[in-house]
Amino acid sequence: MVNFIDSVHSMINFEIHEQELHSWLKDLFPINRSISGRGQIITLNYLKNLVPSIEVKSFKSGEIAFDWVAPEVWDVENAYVEDEKGNKIIDFQENNLHLVGYSTPVNEVMSKQKLIEHLHSIENIPDAIPYVTSYYKRNWGFCLSHNQLKTLNEGPFHVVIDSKFENGELFFGELIIEGSTDEEILLSTYICHPSMANDNLSGPVITIGIIKWLLGLKNRKYTYRIIFIPETIGSIFYIKENLVSLKELVVAGYVLTCLGDEGGYSYLSSRNGNTITDRISIKLLKDLKVDYKLYPFTENGSDERQFCFPGVDLPIGSLMKSKYGEFPQYHNSHDNLDFVTPKGLKQGFELISTALKMIETNRTYKISTLCEPQLGKRGLYPQSSQLGTESIVRDQMNVIAYLDGQNDVLSVSEICNLPYFATLNIITKLQEKGLITEISSNSDK
Amino acid sequence: MVNFIDSVHSMINFEIHEQELHSWLKDLFPINRSISGRGQIITLNYLKNLVPSIEVKSFKSGEIAFDWVAPEVWDVENAYVEDEKGNKIIDFQENNLHLVGYSTPVNEVMSKQKLIEHLHSIENIPDAIPYVTSYYKRNWGFCLSHNQLKTLNEGPFHVVIDSKFENGELFFGELIIEGSTDEEILLSTYICHPSMANDNLSGPVITIGIIKWLLGLKNRKYTYRIIFIPETIGSIFYIKENLVSLKELVVAGYVLTCLGDEGGYSYLSSRNGNTITDRISIKLLKDLKVDYKLYPFTENGSDERQFCFPGVDLPIGSLMKSKYGEFPQYHNSHDNLDFVTPKGLKQGFELISTALKMIETNRTYKISTLCEPQLGKRGLYPQSSQLGTESIVRDQMNVIAYLDGQNDVLSVSEICNLPYFATLNIITKLQEKGLITEISSNSDK
Amino acid sequence: MVNFIDSVHSMINFEIHEQELHSWLKDLFPINRSISGRGQIITLNYLKNLVPSIEVKSFKSGEIAFDWVAPEVWDVENAYVEDEKGNKIIDFQENNLHLVGYSTPVNEVMSKQKLIEHLHSIENIPDAIPYVTSYYKRNWGFCLSHNQLKTLNEGPFHVVIDSKFENGELFFGELIIEGSTDEEILLSTYICHPSMANDNLSGPVITIGIIKWLLGLKNRKYTYRIIFIPETIGSIFYIKENLVSLKELVVAGYVLTCLGDEGGYSYLSSRNGNTITDRISIKLLKDLKVDYKLYPFTENGSDERQFCFPGVDLPIGSLMKSKYGEFPQYHNSHDNLDFVTPKGLKQGFELISTALKMIETNRTYKISTLCEPQLGKRGLYPQSSQLGTESIVRDQMNVIAYLDGQNDVLSVSEICNLPYFATLNIITKLQEKGLITEISSNSDK
Repeated sequence: MVNFIDSVHSMINFEIHEQELHSWLKDLFPINRSISGRGQIITLNYLKNLVPSIEVKSFKSGEIAFDWVAPEVWDVENAYVEDEKGNKIIDFQENNLHLVGYSTPVNEVMSKQKLIEHLHSIENIPDAIPYVTSYYKRNWGFCLSHNQLKTLNEGPFHVVIDSKFENGELFFGELIIEGSTDEEILLSTYICHPSMANDNLSGPVITIGIIKWLLGLKNRKYTYRIIFIPETIGSIFYIKENLVSLKELVVAGYVLTCLGDEGGYSYLSSRNGNTITDRISIKLLKDLKVDYKLYPFTENGSDERQFCFPGVDLPIGSLMKSKYGEFPQYHNSHDNLDFVTPKGLKQGFELISTALKMIETNRTYKISTLCEPQLGKRGLYPQSSQLGTESIVRDQMNVIAYLDGQNDVLSVSEICNLPYFATLNIITKLQEKGLITEISSNSDK
Repeated sequence: MVNFIDSVHSMINFEIHEQELHSWLKDLFPINRSISGRGQIITLNYLKNLVPSIEVKSFKSGEIAFDWVAPEVWDVENAYVEDEKGNKIIDFQENNLHLVGYSTPVNEVMSKQKLIEHLHSIENIPDAIPYVTSYYKRNWGFCLSHNQLKTLNEGPFHVVIDSKFENGELFFGELIIEGSTDEEILLSTYICHPSMANDNLSGPVITIGIIKWLLGLKNRKYTYRIIFIPETIGSIFYIKENLVSLKELVVAGYVLTCLGDEGGYSYLSSRNGNTITDRISIKLLKDLKVDYKLYPFTENGSDERQFCFPGVDLPIGSLMKSKYGEFPQYHNSHDNLDFVTPKGLKQGFELISTALKMIETNRTYKISTLCEPQLGKRGLYPQSSQLGTESIVRDQMNVIAYLDGQNDVLSVSEICNLPYFATLNIITKLQEKGLITEISSNSDK
Repeated sequence: MVNFIDSVHSMINFEIHEQELHSWLKDLFPINRSISGRGQIITLNYLKNLVPSIEVKSFKSGEIAFDWVAPEVWDVENAYVEDEKGNKIIDFQENNLHLVGYSTPVNEVMSKQKLIEHLHSIENIPDAIPYVTSYYKRNWGFCLSHNQLKTLNEGPFHVVIDSKFENGELFFGELIIEGSTDEEILLSTYICHPSMANDNLSGPVITIGIIKWLLGLKNRKYTYRIIFIPETIGSIFYIKENLVSLKELVVAGYVLTCLGDEGGYSYLSSRNGNTITDRISIKLLKDLKVDYKLYPFTENGSDERQFCFPGVDLPIGSLMKSKYGEFPQYHNSHDNLDFVTPKGLKQGFELISTALKMIETNRTYKISTLCEPQLGKRGLYPQSSQLGTESIVRDQMNVIAYLDGQNDVLSVSEICNLPYFATLNIITKLQEKGLITEISSNSDK
């Protein structure tokens, strides 16, 4: 099964350049993103440059969505800690993880004791700078490696945070790619994390790759609704604006995150756990014959929390390489351009594009004969048969036996213990011979 | 989880004195109980003395309930076997297990051969006197240890049983403790076994403890129907008299038996196997983190046979310490005041009271926001977050995600892989913040 | 459980002579059967001689059934390969497996190279002659042992096949044995395989035994529809002619094949997998306490493919000894009169007759009392009871508890963890005492 990805590659019919994916990632990496502010605008402009049809939209500080108020826009010019000699010992210009997200302005000389209450480090990973935010409770802080923390002298220290909060707009990107039906697949990724590569620059980068592939794909059944949002606040506002149509139209979808490392594969289930998104994703991981982990929804951690919330109830899961929270580089400065590789990104792209290809092709068919069709006269049966039940015939016969108008391609492949695309190949041949008809579905989610 | 019982103890908010439980048991132990007769009246009077609101009721010999006729009342003044020298070698006055229950009167000198046909012993437990009855087929007999049986001389023997059968009343106790709804929890225990401590004096003793606890409990949702009956004939007559209201009102309940030893924990399922009684009991045993055994209904042996009978179909199971039939002291003289201890009785009390507390609190709630509520502004979220998905936040978020108006507290705790009371604590906090509403249920059994 | 078959033997109340079964097999073995032709007529006449009420019917070459056209009738007078010296080195008269079924006429001297393209052997079983056919694609060929293949000289060879194709009739046998209801059990076996004993002469031979047993059986509930057909084409034409009544009437049934070896036991599921045929067959194999294998429908290989086809959907499986395709003698000359033994045939007969006895008796009953019946007064309870829950009483009590008008005998036996016939014995006693009533079912398949 080493060839599965290769065969899928030809099936998805799109030459993705893994170096190109990685180059986008490198360009986007240094930007100081947050749930609002300049970094987000720069990021969205970069993405729009790659895919001009992405629309940049916004919601405003102070606007209300359900239980939430959109926060003020935060921007920062400069932030550092100086020692007595005027040396900048912690400097936001060097790594934007050094500053706690949404830190309030500070300009104060303070004791080591007071400073330390605002410092964050990871004792177990002493050379990593952690990623910390405080969006909804005014506070300030710096992050540094535990090694550096231990070298701090006795102070006092001059702390400068030149940040500001203003009423303004929180931006997000949206792209609708129309298909032959109104039914939608929702792809959501988040653009609020600063310099970390897997969580979550891999998300928007793979999403751009998927968009380029989808735009070239003929005969798309589904309409694709693709959004680039600040996490949590973004999905909440997006749901607020689009609840009725999301609930009516979305039949499957993913939150795209953690798609660029070379570790294992994983799937985080939707809240319901039995949607087509869940079934397709699990089958794909089985068929891939790779190591993978399945996580229940209770291990969630991104926008599926909103998309699957009671009353919203969209069929959204997350197909990932290594899941957030499960790799040591998670949410610290080790999640960098070495951890996410061109090869890892290509695996992530192929994972998502293959899943989408499966959802696109997962129709329900009915065999058009009563009793078995005579395959020999159609060139689908070997000329003479020594054993009545050869395996070369068996798979085809079994697929036929379960094309009863009830089972979709996925169910048939599960019952017949065949890979999805092997099943689809058989079905395609039967369709060419006019032996099956597609059942038009008022597809339930 | 050593502290579970302790934490439950504070939760059930009642100081039970284990020595008091054991003292009731000691007082009741010597009485010769059967399904009728003086011993039962003495027992009921003792219980009524502890809880005056217990009503003593009766049904009459010769009355018919379904397939059964209430038997005559049996009483015995004296019963012994004398050897040729006039020594009482088996004497009912020494241990009322010596006489087979419902033995007919005898006054006859007989050969060893004839006597032996009426003797019962246990070869495998040679120092124990077995417990034998013959309620519905007239017969007589004595029980003795196998050791003693082997020492019998060649006789002849003088056998005296001064018993009598009379038409009369078979008594039972009933107590209704009203709650805020008409829905009932049925607690049934039996008072027909002579000097045996676990099966079944522990049953009425724990039941009295539970009554005292319930009477002090504020905000009881359910009405409690509590009965002290002779086994089998008592439940059949009780069902006969109360079938319509039992079927309409009872939503959960237990047969209380074998609740005083220090062995393991066990649960015998209802016939249906999927009632709220079953689900709560199994979750409780899991949460306790103790050794426990689950028995299917086919291992039954007490009044659940009638309560769960086809057409009666009440949701009744048995939460026990060591299950009847599964411990060597079962139905013999070793089931005594050493086998049942104050500590064992306290465990039994806490087992049942905790289960009832779970049933009382097992409501269904719905989160009142669309998308997640903002917990930070309500003090339910840590101030700043290094990892987006800390376990301290996760449990709370997961509970919220499944408070969808479909899952009761029990289901939520199972889905979130949390102890029941940990889940309830989270829900209580959410309720205090006005974030959830209770779904009023026309609770199905 | 060694006695299970013995106890069943008395239960099915029919003395089958295993030698008689084997003698029929021996008589039928040499005949050159195919899906048409003389061999089939001879075979059907032989069966009709054993059971005169079998009706011989036919369909005609060129007739259409669904996707199929009935082929021409094929007969062969002679077929051999001669070497240069005129020695018949391969001769159809010696073993009719030597000739590929439906071989076209040939009379030609040819090179070894050309001949070899038409030869079939099994490299792994070098002394066996394989069984090969080419019904629907005109071709010719010979089968021989791999050992013989290796000894062929350089030729040339004189190949003679004196066969002919004519429009005519394809015959099959049918027998309807009426029961007390219109509901039917379908038994189908195939008569198109030449000299092979297990696949499939054991099929018609066991079927004749079953017919003789059924004809002597009193109080049959079900009507039996029994057919002897050429595989695939026969079932397709039979379904074509009888689709409406089959779908309306058939509630259970089997394809009878591979019933005569002394290997293990096996069951091939119906397509649906949850029919009464499936449930009874699996319970029987469990109760037998023998080694057995369960095969999903995707391991099919005979007429269940048509009977279970989408839109036909009959509840048909296959109870077998060793399953076709799973034993090395399968479809070659080793499947002979040594492989199939009198003992193996008797096991096959008892397997099928016991399954049918189970289906016949698998009714649904309801206990007629509310609360337990008093068994003592009916002689169904031991006189005095030392333990309240002895195992001798328990099974009876458990069966009663689940005779709730919902569970059939099979379900009750599964819930109570009892063998089917032990459950049936208890139910029979209860019925004799008037304690249960049969629920008349509009039996769903």
